[in-house]
Amino acid sequence: MLCVEQYIYLQIIIKKGMDSDMIIAADTLISGDGHTIIRNGGILCENEKIIAVGEGIKLREAYPQEEYVDYGPATILPGLIDMHVHIAYYLNRSDTSLYTDHLVAYQALYNAQLMLFNGVTTIRDVFCPSGVCRQLAYAAKKGFVRAPRIIHSNRALTNTGGIDWQSGGATVQVDGPEEIRKAVRREIREGAQWIKAMTSWRKPNVAQFDQEELNMIVNETHRLGYKTAAHATLQPALQMCIEAGFDTIEHGTDLTLEQAQIMKEKGIAYTPTIYVHKAIYEQLAEKLAMGGVLSEYEKQTYSIYKKATATYAQNFLPIYNSGVLTLAGTDCVFEGMENISVAHELACMVEYGLKPVQAIATAAKNAAQALDLSGHIGELCQGAIADVLVVSGDAGKDITALKQICDVYQNGVRIQRAI
Amino acid sequence: MLCVEQYIYLQIIIKKGMDSDMIIAADTLISGDGHTIIRNGGILCENEKIIAVGEGIKLREAYPQEEYVDYGPATILPGLIDMHVHIAYYLNRSDTSLYTDHLVAYQALYNAQLMLFNGVTTIRDVFCPSGVCRQLAYAAKKGFVRAPRIIHSNRALTNTGGIDWQSGGATVQVDGPEEIRKAVRREIREGAQWIKAMTSWRKPNVAQFDQEELNMIVNETHRLGYKTAAHATLQPALQMCIEAGFDTIEHGTDLTLEQAQIMKEKGIAYTPTIYVHKAIYEQLAEKLAMGGVLSEYEKQTYSIYKKATATYAQNFLPIYNSGVLTLAGTDCVFEGMENISVAHELACMVEYGLKPVQAIATAAKNAAQALDLSGHIGELCQGAIADVLVVSGDAGKDITALKQICDVYQNGVRIQRAI
Amino acid sequence: MLCVEQYIYLQIIIKKGMDSDMIIAADTLISGDGHTIIRNGGILCENEKIIAVGEGIKLREAYPQEEYVDYGPATILPGLIDMHVHIAYYLNRSDTSLYTDHLVAYQALYNAQLMLFNGVTTIRDVFCPSGVCRQLAYAAKKGFVRAPRIIHSNRALTNTGGIDWQSGGATVQVDGPEEIRKAVRREIREGAQWIKAMTSWRKPNVAQFDQEELNMIVNETHRLGYKTAAHATLQPALQMCIEAGFDTIEHGTDLTLEQAQIMKEKGIAYTPTIYVHKAIYEQLAEKLAMGGVLSEYEKQTYSIYKKATATYAQNFLPIYNSGVLTLAGTDCVFEGMENISVAHELACMVEYGLKPVQAIATAAKNAAQALDLSGHIGELCQGAIADVLVVSGDAGKDITALKQICDVYQNGVRIQRAI
Amino acid sequence: MLCVEQYIYLQIIIKKGMDSDMIIAADTLISGDGHTIIRNGGILCENEKIIAVGEGIKLREAYPQEEYVDYGPATILPGLIDMHVHIAYYLNRSDTSLYTDHLVAYQALYNAQLMLFNGVTTIRDVFCPSGVCRQLAYAAKKGFVRAPRIIHSNRALTNTGGIDWQSGGATVQVDGPEEIRKAVRREIREGAQWIKAMTSWRKPNVAQFDQEELNMIVNETHRLGYKTAAHATLQPALQMCIEAGFDTIEHGTDLTLEQAQIMKEKGIAYTPTIYVHKAIYEQLAEKLAMGGVLSEYEKQTYSIYKKATATYAQNFLPIYNSGVLTLAGTDCVFEGMENISVAHELACMVEYGLKPVQAIATAAKNAAQALDLSGHIGELCQGAIADVLVVSGDAGKDITALKQICDVYQNGVRIQRAI
Repeated sequence: MLCVEQYIYLQIIIKKGMDSDMIIAADTLISGDGHTIIRNGGILCENEKIIAVGEGIKLREAYPQEEYVDYGPATILPGLIDMHVHIAYYLNRSDTSLYTDHLVAYQALYNAQLMLFNGVTTIRDVFCPSGVCRQLAYAAKKGFVRAPRIIHSNRALTNTGGIDWQSGGATVQVDGPEEIRKAVRREIREGAQWIKAMTSWRKPNVAQFDQEELNMIVNETHRLGYKTAAHATLQPALQMCIEAGFDTIEHGTDLTLEQAQIMKEKGIAYTPTIYVHKAIYEQLAEKLAMGGVLSEYEKQTYSIYKKATATYAQNFLPIYNSGVLTLAGTDCVFEGMENISVAHELACMVEYGLKPVQAIATAAKNAAQALDLSGHIGELCQGAIADVLVVSGDAGKDITALKQICDVYQNGVRIQRAI
Repeated sequence: MLCVEQYIYLQIIIKKGMDSDMIIAADTLISGDGHTIIRNGGILCENEKIIAVGEGIKLREAYPQEEYVDYGPATILPGLIDMHVHIAYYLNRSDTSLYTDHLVAYQALYNAQLMLFNGVTTIRDVFCPSGVCRQLAYAAKKGFVRAPRIIHSNRALTNTGGIDWQSGGATVQVDGPEEIRKAVRREIREGAQWIKAMTSWRKPNVAQFDQEELNMIVNETHRLGYKTAAHATLQPALQMCIEAGFDTIEHGTDLTLEQAQIMKEKGIAYTPTIYVHKAIYEQLAEKLAMGGVLSEYEKQTYSIYKKATATYAQNFLPIYNSGVLTLAGTDCVFEGMENISVAHELACMVEYGLKPVQAIATAAKNAAQALDLSGHIGELCQGAIADVLVVSGDAGKDITALKQICDVYQNGVRIQRAI
Repeated sequence: MLCVEQYIYLQIIIKKGMDSDMIIAADTLISGDGHTIIRNGGILCENEKIIAVGEGIKLREAYPQEEYVDYGPATILPGLIDMHVHIAYYLNRSDTSLYTDHLVAYQALYNAQLMLFNGVTTIRDVFCPSGVCRQLAYAAKKGFVRAPRIIHSNRALTNTGGIDWQSGGATVQVDGPEEIRKAVRREIREGAQWIKAMTSWRKPNVAQFDQEELNMIVNETHRLGYKTAAHATLQPALQMCIEAGFDTIEHGTDLTLEQAQIMKEKGIAYTPTIYVHKAIYEQLAEKLAMGGVLSEYEKQTYSIYKKATATYAQNFLPIYNSGVLTLAGTDCVFEGMENISVAHELACMVEYGLKPVQAIATAAKNAAQALDLSGHIGELCQGAIADVLVVSGDAGKDITALKQICDVYQNGVRIQRAI
Repeated sequence: MLCVEQYIYLQIIIKKGMDSDMIIAADTLISGDGHTIIRNGGILCENEKIIAVGEGIKLREAYPQEEYVDYGPATILPGLIDMHVHIAYYLNRSDTSLYTDHLVAYQALYNAQLMLFNGVTTIRDVFCPSGVCRQLAYAAKKGFVRAPRIIHSNRALTNTGGIDWQSGGATVQVDGPEEIRKAVRREIREGAQWIKAMTSWRKPNVAQFDQEELNMIVNETHRLGYKTAAHATLQPALQMCIEAGFDTIEHGTDLTLEQAQIMKEKGIAYTPTIYVHKAIYEQLAEKLAMGGVLSEYEKQTYSIYKKATATYAQNFLPIYNSGVLTLAGTDCVFEGMENISVAHELACMVEYGLKPVQAIATAAKNAAQALDLSGHIGELCQGAIADVLVVSGDAGKDITALKQICDVYQNGVRIQRAI
C-alpha cells in the first residue's frame, strides 16, 4: 500500500530530477569521442548546456550548491544521434489507406518519441512526405509536442520509376540536370537541410541517375550551402556517388576497401545500416524455418538481405578500419519495428569487431561531425548542449546496456516517457 | 542527494500505481450523478472497468489482495466530459499561414492532451477541419498518441456566408434542404458522430438557416441514428432550433424560461458556455481599463460578450432549475487560452447558484446521458469504464478543488503528464 | 503676377476652410426634406456632424468663436445620394480587353471620385464585379483613397442568359429557388448590403425570373435582414416584382398609376433613371440627324430609349404625385458619360413638373429613407453627418445650379478635387 | 472670416497657377546635373516642356507676356527619380488576407501618390504582382488617376525558394537557363521595362542563381533591348552579377572598391539603399532599448541591418568617388513607412560625405542616365519634360530642404495633394 503522503513525497523527489541545474554522476561516463571513459564520472548542467565534465565527486566538491544525483552502476553518455531514420514512412501497413496527413503526423510523432525515449536526442530523417519533419520540429518549438532534434531532407530525389518512387509522397521523381536543379532548390525551400538522392536499387549493375545528374545534385546543393546523402548499396552507383562527391553514403553494402579509402580522403562518411538488414533477414529466415511460405517480394528481400548481412559481416570492420567516418543509422520503416533503437545498430558494430566506445562514437561524435555540429551535440564536453543519456550498467563493457534506459535529458530537461 | 538505488526503487513503486488493478480511496468520493457523495469512498478497478464503489475501508477488506492507494484529503470523481470543444481551431494565430494539416494535427493533440491532464477524459468536439478528430482518435487507438475519448461532429454546417464560414475548413457552407441532406451524410461518412449546425450570429433577429433547412438537418441526422447540436445564441434561431428538435442547444444565451421548459419536455439539452464569454469580456474590459484601444472587431465582441455575461448571470439558474438537461462546455478556441478547463465552467455554475455536485454532474452524468453513454462514463458506478479523476481537497465543498489535479486515470490507466 | 508671399498667404487661408469646425452660410439653404428652404441659412459643423441649422447670422451670434464662411449667392444643401450607379462597369470600351482587376479598380475609383466632386457623397451601386465596391470602401476606410460613402449589391442576380449576363462579372446567372437562396447568401457574404435582381429585358411581355424565384430573392434577403432592388422596366415583370415585394423598383418605365399606388401602400420605392434614357436617345437621334448610320444594336436601343423617354415624359409626374417614394438614379455606365451627375436626373424631374426642392429630395431625404439612413444623411438637420454640398446660385429656383459646384464636404472635411 | 467673394477670387488665382504656361523662379535653382546652381534662377514652361532655363529676372524680361511666379527663398529642382521602389508590396500587414487585386491596386496608387506629393515624378518599381504597375500607368494615361511616371520590372525573377519567393506574387521562381529565357520574355510581354533578378540572400557566401543563369538573364534581356537590375548584397553574388553584366546593382552592401571600379568601366550603376537599412536598424535598436523583445525574424534582421548600416557608412563615399554611376533608391515596403521619400536617402548620402548637389544628381541626372532618359527627365534643361519640384529653403546648402515641399509639377501641371 502506498498512502497519499508517500505518494506526494515521491512526486516531489522525481520532480527534482527535472529542469533544474544539477550534477549527474554515475560509475561510468563515456564522452562520445570514441575512446574517453571516465570512471565515477559526472557532468554539471546549467541552462541547457554542459558546464563541466569530470569525476562526479570533484564536481560535487567544486559546485557544492548544485543538486547532485548519482546513478550508481550506470553509464552517462551523450544523447545519441541516429543518422538514418524515416519517421513518417507508412507504406505497406494493413491500413495504409487511412494514412491522411493528420495520421502521418501522429505516426511521425510516435516514431520520433520512441527514439527519444530510447535515448536518441537527434535524428537525421532522410526522406518524408513533404513538410512532416519541418512541421514536427516547428510543433516542438511551439511546445505542442516533445520530439528529438530533427535534421531532415524533406523528400528524397529519385528518378522516374526509381527506387521508392512509390513512397506515399516521401520521394519525388526527377530526371535530367534541369529538373534536378529545381528539385534541389524546392526541397530546400520546403525546409530540407540535406538533399537525399536514391541512386541504386535491386537491379544489379545499374545506377539510377547518370553521372551528370548525380553531379548536379551534389554541386547545386553544395553551391547553396547544404549537404547531400546518397542511398547507394551496389556498384556502379557507389562509385558514381563517390565521384560526384556526396557527403554521406547510406547503406554502402557493396563498398570496397579502395572506395572507403577514397571516401576517407574526400571526407565522405559512411552509414552502413547493418541491423535493419540483419533483422529482416532473420525474420524471414525464421518464417521459413517455421514452415512459412514467402511471397515473391519476400523471397527477393530474403535473398538480398541475406547477402547484405553476409557482406556487412565481412566488410564492415575493414571499411571502418580504413578510417572513413562511420555513422550509425537504423533505417527502420517497417511496421512492428518502430521500437528498434540505434542501440541495436551499435550492438551489430560491436559484434563485428568494434569496441563499445567506438560504436557509440558512430552515433555521437562522428555523427555530429557529419552534421557540422561538432562541439554542440554528440559529445559530453564543456559548452555542449545538455543532451544526455543514462543507462543501467557499464556500456563501455557491454553495449547492450544501451537498451536499459534510465533517463534521457534533452536541452538539460529530463524527458518523461509518455507513450 | 538521491542515489540510484533509491531512484530505481521509486520508479518501481510509481510504476505499480499504473495499469494494474487496484483500489483507490480518498476522503471524498463524488459519483457524478448530481447528488451522491461518499465519505472515505473508494473504487475497485479491474481491466479498465470499475468493479465496485463504496467506502474505501470496506473495499479493502473485501478485496485484500488488491493494491490499495489512499489519496487522503482528496476527492475521487468520474473523469470529466467537456461537451463543447474545438481542439483543431487555429485561426487568428500570428502564424496561421503555417498551419498545414501536419501542424493542425499537432495542435489538436496538444489541446486534447491539456484537457486530459486537466481531468477531462471525454470530449465532444463540435467542429474541426475534416478528419482531424477522427484521425486523432484513430491515432490514439493505434497507440501513436494518448488522448481523451473523442466524440465529434467533424465539420459544422453553416450557410453560405454564415457564422464561421471562414474557419480554416472547420465548417462547410450549405444551402437548401437537398444540399443539407447530402452534407449530413457526407459528414457522417467522414466520421461525424454528431451533426453540428451554426444557426445564429451577430446580426440580431436573423436566423441563418430557415425552418425547412433546420428541419432537414435534424430529421436526416436522426433518421440515420445520430444526434444534432445547434449553435444558437439569439432569437429567433433559438425558437426555430427547438421547433426543429435539435438534441443540444449550444450557448443558448437568450433562451427564455418558457423555451427551457419546452426543451425539457422534448428532451433537448442545454450547453451554456458561460465561462468563455465571461473570460473574454473580462479580458477586453481589462484592456480598456489599462487604456488599451479595441479594434472594431474587439469592440463588437466586447459589447456582445458583456451582454451575454450579464444574461447568463440572470438566466442560468432559472433555466437550470426548469429541469432542462444542462451540460458543461468550454468552447475555448483562442490562442493563449488553451489551458482553460471545464473546471472553470463548473466554477461559474456554482457562482451562479448550483451546488458543486450539481455542477459536476453537468460534466459527468448529464453529459453521458446526452451522449447516450449513461452507465459507461460520467459516473462512478459498477460496470463503468475506469475514467477517474482525483483532485486535492473536497470538491463537494469547494468546486475550485477541480483545478488541483492529483491524478487522471483513463480506462484504468494512470496518465502521466508529458507536456 | 503672384509673388510667393501672397501665394503662401493664400494657401493658409484655403487650408483654414478644411477639416476645422466651422459655420458655413449662404443666401439659400435647402434642407433636403422636399420643402424646407432657409434664406440666409447656415449650418454649424463639429467633428463630422451637423450641430445646428438655421439662419447664418444667428448661428454666428450664437457661436462667435467658430470660423464663419459665407458663400454669398450660393445654395447649401445635403451631400446628394445617387441611388443607381455602376462605378465598375467597363464593357463596350474600345479597350475592354485591358480591364484587368487592377484597371477596374482604378476606373471604379475614378467614377466614384467624379461623383464625389459633383456633390454626391453617397452612392448605391447596383451591380459590380465581385469585390470592387467592397474593396473601394475598405481602401477609403484605410485612407488609401477618398471616395463617397458606398452602399452596394455586389453582383446582381440575373437568370441564365438574362439581361446583362455578359457584364464582365457584374452579374451572376442563377436559376431556381435553391440556386437563388445560395446566391443571396453568397452575395451577402461577399459584402452586398442590397440584393439586386435583373427581372425584365428587351423582349416585351416576358419576365426573366418566375414568380417563385422572385419571391425567394425577396424573402430570403428580407429574412437575413437586407433589402432588395429590382431592375424592372416592362410588364409583367413590374407587376411580379411588386407582388414579390422588392424594396425598390429600378427604371420602372412602364409602371402604371395603379401599380404606383400599390407600391406606395407596400412601401416600395421607385428609381426612374429618366436622364440616361433621354441622353442616349438624344445622342442616337443626333447621330441619325447628322446622317449617321445606326448599328442593329443601336437601332434597337434607339427605339427602346425613344419610347422610354416618351413614357417617362408622360407618366413620371402622375406616378410621383401618387405618393410613391421616388428616388434619383443616374445608371450611367457608358464610356464618355462618366461625368454625368445626379444633377442631370434632378433637372429632368423638374422639367417634367417637380419643384426643385422636390427633385432634390429624391437624391436626399427620400434616398436616405430607402437606405434606412434617415437622420444620418440626405438632410441638413441636427445630428446628421456633415456631408454637405455648396453650389453657386439658388438651386431652389434653378435646378441647374447643382452643376456649379463650389464645395463638397464629406464627414465635415472639404474635398479637394484631385482629378 | 472669409466672405465668399474673397473665397471665389482666391480660387481663381490659385487656378491660374496650374496648367498654364508660366515662368517660375526662386532664389536657388539646382539643375540636377550634380554641380550647376543658378542663383535667382527660373524656368519657362510651355506645353509640358521646359523652354528656357536661366535667371528668373531675365526670363521675365524676355517673356513679358508669361505668367511669372517667384517662390522667393526656395529651390527649384527637377522632379526627383526614385530608382528602387515597390509600390504594390503588401505582405506582413495585419490585414494581408484582405489584399485582393482591387485593394492592391488602391494601395499601389496610394504609395505612388505619396511619392508624387513628396516630389518624386518618376519611379522605377523593381518588383510588383504582375500587372499592377502597368495598369496603374495605364490608368494614369487614361486619366483615371494621377501618378508619377512609372518604369517597372513587373515581377522579379528569383530561384525556387530564393529570396522573396513568398511575395504575394511579386516574384516568380525560375531555374535553369531555359526557364529563365522564357521568364524574361514573359515579364516583358507583361509590361516589364527592366528585368529584375534576386541574386543573394541572408545565407552568406551563397549566390542563388549560378553564373550560367545570371548570364542568361542579362544576355536575353539585352538582346531584346531592355535593361537588368540585380538585387545583390553579398559576395559572391556581387562579383557574379558584375561578371554577368547587369545594368544596375541594387543594395550592393558588401561591394568592394575594386568591384566599383570594374562597374564604372563596364557602365554598371549602383543603387545603395542606405536609408532603409539604417531606418529599420534604428527602429529595432530603439525597440531593444525600450526593453522590447525581438522575434527570431527581427533578431536576424537587426543583426544584418546593423552590419549593413555600418558597412554603408564606411564604403559608400569611396565607392561613389570611384566614379561608378550612383543612384538613389528607397526600397521602402514596410507598413507605416510608406511616406519615406527619396529625400531621406539623399540626406544619408550627404551625411556620408556628398555635397547636396551631388546627392540630388543621384535622384536626377544620374537616374535619368540609367533609365536612358537623359535630357528628358532628371535635369532642368531646355527641351526636358516639365517635371519640377519646388521646396522651401536652399537645398544646395541644406539637403533637408527637400522635405519641405512647396509645389510639384508633372508635365507642367501643378499637382494638388489629394490624400
